[in-house]
Amino acid sequence: MGNRKDDKRIAVLASGGDSPGMNAALRAVVRAALWEHYQVFGIQNGYEGLLHNEIRELTSRDMGLIINQGGTMLGTARSAEFQTREGLEKAARILHEHRIDALCVVGGDGSFRGLMELSEFYKGQVVGIPGTIDNDIPGTEYTIGFDTAVQTAVEAIDKLRDTALSHGRLFFVEVMGRNSGQIALSVALASGAEDVIIPEERTDVEEFAQRLEAGRKKGKRFGIVVVAEGAPLPREVERARVLRAEAPDPNVKAAIAPEESPAFAWAEVMRPRIGMNIRVSVLGHIQRGGRPTSFDRVWGSRTGDAAIRFIKQGLTGVFTAMRGGHITPAYLFEATRGVRAVEPEMVQLVRKMGS
Amino acid sequence: MGNRKDDKRIAVLASGGDSPGMNAALRAVVRAALWEHYQVFGIQNGYEGLLHNEIRELTSRDMGLIINQGGTMLGTARSAEFQTREGLEKAARILHEHRIDALCVVGGDGSFRGLMELSEFYKGQVVGIPGTIDNDIPGTEYTIGFDTAVQTAVEAIDKLRDTALSHGRLFFVEVMGRNSGQIALSVALASGAEDVIIPEERTDVEEFAQRLEAGRKKGKRFGIVVVAEGAPLPREVERARVLRAEAPDPNVKAAIAPEESPAFAWAEVMRPRIGMNIRVSVLGHIQRGGRPTSFDRVWGSRTGDAAIRFIKQGLTGVFTAMRGGHITPAYLFEATRGVRAVEPEMVQLVRKMGS
Amino acid sequence: MGNRKDDKRIAVLASGGDSPGMNAALRAVVRAALWEHYQVFGIQNGYEGLLHNEIRELTSRDMGLIINQGGTMLGTARSAEFQTREGLEKAARILHEHRIDALCVVGGDGSFRGLMELSEFYKGQVVGIPGTIDNDIPGTEYTIGFDTAVQTAVEAIDKLRDTALSHGRLFFVEVMGRNSGQIALSVALASGAEDVIIPEERTDVEEFAQRLEAGRKKGKRFGIVVVAEGAPLPREVERARVLRAEAPDPNVKAAIAPEESPAFAWAEVMRPRIGMNIRVSVLGHIQRGGRPTSFDRVWGSRTGDAAIRFIKQGLTGVFTAMRGGHITPAYLFEATRGVRAVEPEMVQLVRKMGS
Amino acid sequence: MGNRKDDKRIAVLASGGDSPGMNAALRAVVRAALWEHYQVFGIQNGYEGLLHNEIRELTSRDMGLIINQGGTMLGTARSAEFQTREGLEKAARILHEHRIDALCVVGGDGSFRGLMELSEFYKGQVVGIPGTIDNDIPGTEYTIGFDTAVQTAVEAIDKLRDTALSHGRLFFVEVMGRNSGQIALSVALASGAEDVIIPEERTDVEEFAQRLEAGRKKGKRFGIVVVAEGAPLPREVERARVLRAEAPDPNVKAAIAPEESPAFAWAEVMRPRIGMNIRVSVLGHIQRGGRPTSFDRVWGSRTGDAAIRFIKQGLTGVFTAMRGGHITPAYLFEATRGVRAVEPEMVQLVRKMGS
Repeated sequence: MGNRKDDKRIAVLASGGDSPGMNAALRAVVRAALWEHYQVFGIQNGYEGLLHNEIRELTSRDMGLIINQGGTMLGTARSAEFQTREGLEKAARILHEHRIDALCVVGGDGSFRGLMELSEFYKGQVVGIPGTIDNDIPGTEYTIGFDTAVQTAVEAIDKLRDTALSHGRLFFVEVMGRNSGQIALSVALASGAEDVIIPEERTDVEEFAQRLEAGRKKGKRFGIVVVAEGAPLPREVERARVLRAEAPDPNVKAAIAPEESPAFAWAEVMRPRIGMNIRVSVLGHIQRGGRPTSFDRVWGSRTGDAAIRFIKQGLTGVFTAMRGGHITPAYLFEATRGVRAVEPEMVQLVRKMGS
Repeated sequence: MGNRKDDKRIAVLASGGDSPGMNAALRAVVRAALWEHYQVFGIQNGYEGLLHNEIRELTSRDMGLIINQGGTMLGTARSAEFQTREGLEKAARILHEHRIDALCVVGGDGSFRGLMELSEFYKGQVVGIPGTIDNDIPGTEYTIGFDTAVQTAVEAIDKLRDTALSHGRLFFVEVMGRNSGQIALSVALASGAEDVIIPEERTDVEEFAQRLEAGRKKGKRFGIVVVAEGAPLPREVERARVLRAEAPDPNVKAAIAPEESPAFAWAEVMRPRIGMNIRVSVLGHIQRGGRPTSFDRVWGSRTGDAAIRFIKQGLTGVFTAMRGGHITPAYLFEATRGVRAVEPEMVQLVRKMGS
Repeated sequence: MGNRKDDKRIAVLASGGDSPGMNAALRAVVRAALWEHYQVFGIQNGYEGLLHNEIRELTSRDMGLIINQGGTMLGTARSAEFQTREGLEKAARILHEHRIDALCVVGGDGSFRGLMELSEFYKGQVVGIPGTIDNDIPGTEYTIGFDTAVQTAVEAIDKLRDTALSHGRLFFVEVMGRNSGQIALSVALASGAEDVIIPEERTDVEEFAQRLEAGRKKGKRFGIVVVAEGAPLPREVERARVLRAEAPDPNVKAAIAPEESPAFAWAEVMRPRIGMNIRVSVLGHIQRGGRPTSFDRVWGSRTGDAAIRFIKQGLTGVFTAMRGGHITPAYLFEATRGVRAVEPEMVQLVRKMGS
Repeated sequence: MGNRKDDKRIAVLASGGDSPGMNAALRAVVRAALWEHYQVFGIQNGYEGLLHNEIRELTSRDMGLIINQGGTMLGTARSAEFQTREGLEKAARILHEHRIDALCVVGGDGSFRGLMELSEFYKGQVVGIPGTIDNDIPGTEYTIGFDTAVQTAVEAIDKLRDTALSHGRLFFVEVMGRNSGQIALSVALASGAEDVIIPEERTDVEEFAQRLEAGRKKGKRFGIVVVAEGAPLPREVERARVLRAEAPDPNVKAAIAPEESPAFAWAEVMRPRIGMNIRVSVLGHIQRGGRPTSFDRVWGSRTGDAAIRFIKQGLTGVFTAMRGGHITPAYLFEATRGVRAVEPEMVQLVRKMGS
């Protein structure tokens, strides 16, 4: 790192799943860096692109017209090579060759783990910016993209409600969240759902059926149940899953099979138990894209700016966390310890409001 | 029908699947009728509600604040009883008891068939207003709800495109249209899709793979293929379907199984054939709901008004058709003869634009 | 034009005010032209850019990711020079120098007039594609951008209605349409407005006050009146306008002064006449931008494609008109004869529905 | 209050300007109260309705289908009578007559002031829920409606940007915020604006012109300046204002005159100073309405629920504040001490990002 302290060279990349607002963060990293008279370099396609030397200098103009675009203008990708010692050494070497003083990574916990491992070989500063729609990273109250993903799902349920109401139907709506019920809880609360099924809770089939049936008896002719993608399946469905595992065609597994989709599975076991017309809707990938909400644009801008501030202050091994609503540096390893817990009062509140 | 000519009693109901803009049509029927000093009665829950005498007088105020709501404020339902001779006779008797001079029905071809059968027993005027998102009714260029359904699907694909672009993916997106490719064609054209698979065309697996592969070789790193819900499955998938038919649990069939979803099936057979990262998204019921677009509100208002004009003119057995962009009365039986054909130039245009 | 018939060179530009869906038309012109193995050239910033030789070849990839963008990717501008004989001659000379066989222009009636004048000096084919949010061009039932502009205004009024309802207010909402009430009429119908004021009609102050007062007496606590930008002012306001004309500061005139805004003027004269809480909202330029609706994207694509078909067929001096819902060639001069008339039944329908 | 502790009677009203998400708060108050087996009463049209005894019991069903509606289902109004001692005494008497144990008020600082004054006469508990789009109440980091208002403005600017870009224009966009720049700052940051003018800062005309001119020289062909409704006028415009004050017609004052609109005024003084094409857009009342964002629905639900929790805990004279991202009770008088300050770093960040 032969650069003078006041003449840093910064690189930035996006890694893991994309999330709306990442572009605002990239734009903020670049413009805040240029404001400090640093040079900034963008790495295309995440760690994989780094290994292929896909790096180029960025100007303020390159960041024009992206703040309101979903996805990430640098692309993103998964990389198997980066997970090897050789890959990490190669990545560090490439960064050294480009005389990069600091690397910013926008991504989730997996990306942060990669960044920590890289920093064993790479001598520059490393700073993470939490970006994932799941909002399940420990150590921060917020990750870029969550607000947009929730908003997208809520708007979809506003539409489903129209048709649920006209036809007198109960909809099981599956939202994203492989390991966490954060999205499901906020979506359920904001959409006025009757109930919610999340990974953090073991939902009993008969109890659940009784809750729904109680609502119906009070006169509810329609309703919404929000199901997290990673919610546990009802026990009796595991039989079907076993059958599935024996299916011969390997391509089929890649698709979301009904027996593996908790929304389909829960709909299936509820059908014979309650006297309502049941439908299923899996919202899927639309939750990852779309114009970021103003909240994600503001937070993306603020964290991108903060990342450069941390770099200027000489920090490394940290990420831009939200704590008590404010931005503060937190150690990367904090973010990689499991999944942020949901608040039990939120689960309770969904049911109180939906009653 | 003892009412004087200038003192008609009109009843209105919605039937079949709901579609956005139906409320604008109901509002227009009611307000145009009141403008003529008619009395208007709303029948809840379609023909089923008629058989249960769910009928009440409507005022102008009842129609407030509904023009921008999806679904139908009168509800809708399917009725098995109405499809019997006894049911039709009963329905006619109830209308006669209420001294209804004319019945307006907002719905699709099935609802119009029911209306024609009813008119063998019911002595009043019958007028249909085409409302279905599918826009596949012969004899009219437009049916209420199509524009909103297409818009909803296109907005969803705008979001998918963000993430497809960031990750370099090919998305197979399934849209509604059980018997018709109308929705799929407009969605494909408006979303800038690479290709489209519709019920009206037999798509060859190898030819299709070659088209996609050609795009990829020209440098396309991502893309969208729009698949109509009713598109034919690739031939080799029928094996899986047969396996499915032997599955023991009858509830499973009710769900959309991947082998029966053309989007999943086409994704599955393309995966080994082309060098792209493939994902599937089934948009589902969100296409039926949501705030109607201005187009559907305007067209709903105009056709509801026209229905009353036709009634005033003494017409019966007709529906409010769009021909050459204008409203004209057409015979109900025209609407019940199969499915309106797609224009082959539109299919060609999708591919020309996506190339 | 020394090019072979099957080796045409096409140029395309956008002119006048931008409108959403123009990008879909540009994309379609380019891709349909390439499909025919033509070469295509884009002219930046309208006729002004043509005079400055801002012309470059376009590829299929240049048209990627623009179908869902508002505005026009080629830019647009007004040109004083082009309105002179010298300007026209220079423009023709530049087109000849680039060996352009055909020029496509997306724009309104003013742009078409320019194109007709240009064709007195330019020897190639000229084809117009109607694009203006106003939808007021004679000879075609539709112009690209109208549907999006109406949709934007209707969504804004959906929001205003919430607050109008909560506070018991009457809103005068001004929408675009300098010479025509087409936007105002569709917006009024789709938003469920109580009344509409358009350039095509002389609205009497006292009669209008009576209509509003009648609604209030029937119990209406809130409401919406849609006013076209070009609607006539109430007579008594002209006094204020005269005062205005004597104001000393020339910059003030450039702004929309309340006395020149018909919505403000009508609100002002109604305030002492009716017992309602009145507010004004001028929607302004948001109506020109935003993501095009699916309708504008489809129609933009179809007309762009048709323009190339007309060129291939050897047509010139024509534009892509919608007649009876279909695309047909019409002579440019048809489009330049005044303003397309509104249908009196539509005005009547607004009031019938709002009553 | 002769009711038993476990048998409370709660009343709820909305007061002041409406804001999106108020319905979520009302719904939560009602459902959380019913969950505790309390009785709940809704007061129509704010304190004015209370004085007119517009009070009725609410059920869980009354709260159906409102969570996604803008405005407030109870209506809201200003009351002159309530600001007198007689009014306050009368209001307290009516609450006592209905044996109301606790009154919840959703509103802004003015409404909280009224609630404090009322509590000098009324013996029950009083709890406030902050709801105003301005987010300028001291003592809480958030007020219901702010996120939706910002989102609405940002979506409008996304549209303006399209046309600004196509035509090469600089837009002065006026957003709400009579006393505070909170909305303007978030909107400017999220929309990627070039600059912002807020009430908290004295903006110098020449400095401002230089900043804009610097951007233009770096190649910016278009841009956005966000102006808060309550921003100071440029000094030289005060001359015009004085002229205005002498205008004879009292109705004119009620309208927003250009000389009183800071966006028009700033555009006017910039026009002769910088070489850009300038336009003005006043977003106006659309920012108050519309479907609440998921954030406002969640926060509305949580604060409504918290209000009942505070009541159950026996608290009074408090409101549901956000501090460090969490809900906590704060004294009403805290909320009535001026306007919450903006963070200077946010102003700086807007300019850093827009540079």
